[in-house]
Amino acid sequence: MSNDRLYILKAIELASASISDGGGPFGAVIVKDDKIIAEASNRVVTTNDPTAHAEILAIRQASALLHTHDLNGCTLYSSCEPCPMCLGAIYWSGIKKVVFACDRNDAEKAGFSDRLIYSEIVLQPHERIISFTREAENEGKKVFRQWDELENKIPY
Amino acid sequence: MSNDRLYILKAIELASASISDGGGPFGAVIVKDDKIIAEASNRVVTTNDPTAHAEILAIRQASALLHTHDLNGCTLYSSCEPCPMCLGAIYWSGIKKVVFACDRNDAEKAGFSDRLIYSEIVLQPHERIISFTREAENEGKKVFRQWDELENKIPY
Repeated sequence: MSNDRLYILKAIELASASISDGGGPFGAVIVKDDKIIAEASNRVVTTNDPTAHAEILAIRQASALLHTHDLNGCTLYSSCEPCPMCLGAIYWSGIKKVVFACDRNDAEKAGFSDRLIYSEIVLQPHERIISFTREAENEGKKVFRQWDELENKIPY
Repeated sequence: MSNDRLYILKAIELASASISDGGGPFGAVIVKDDKIIAEASNRVVTTNDPTAHAEILAIRQASALLHTHDLNGCTLYSSCEPCPMCLGAIYWSGIKKVVFACDRNDAEKAGFSDRLIYSEIVLQPHERIISFTREAENEGKKVFRQWDELENKIPY
């Protein structure tokens, strides 16, 4: 059995166990140097946290363990294609390889909004089903100028 | 001064204060029934957590305070247009109104990857700069069938 297959089966096992544990049917593991360094399953309802998707929790665990926000060199295995929130987190984390089992269409059939969010995200803010408006643009830009002028910034 | 302007200025103030505090130049507040119930600024570098954007932290705070993953009825004010990760979190949280000051172009000029992630997210998984592959699709789908068969699910 390939290592990729071994690790994705572990993520799927976590997803399955999550159901009996009151969580959503999603699991994820993060692997570095051929070792699992983080394991998580969906905890949205059990912890009252809409951001507690398996991938987000696994990324937070791995970053805490490695004492860095930069997970370059790690691979994420997820029982389902990451939703836009988790996809964004993957880019910010520097992870360069993702393996998933189910996709956004499977998730939609199971009652999850991943595909809706994917279709909303490409729209201009004013075209979305959520109201997005802009206010105090000039005041906001001053903060970025303050940032520009800061020396010794840590980029991320 | 309108309430929207008042709250967005508060988010901008948090963004500015964050810079002197070692954080990224982003701030957010969540308002419910005309009261601020959560305030946060970017803590990615200071807490070694790539998901610690101001909006994510504010959503987690508000959900913990209200003991629910459902923030319908809350408004999010952010010093910058939410990145795809935070946008996803907003949809999952049920927030229906967002007010922001700077946008993704301003963020890019300040050195942040929001616009890159927006352009990646619309691509098919195999077209992206990160490797996305599928594995164990059938085993994954079994978990969604297990979920389908579960009674008394809490939808989210």
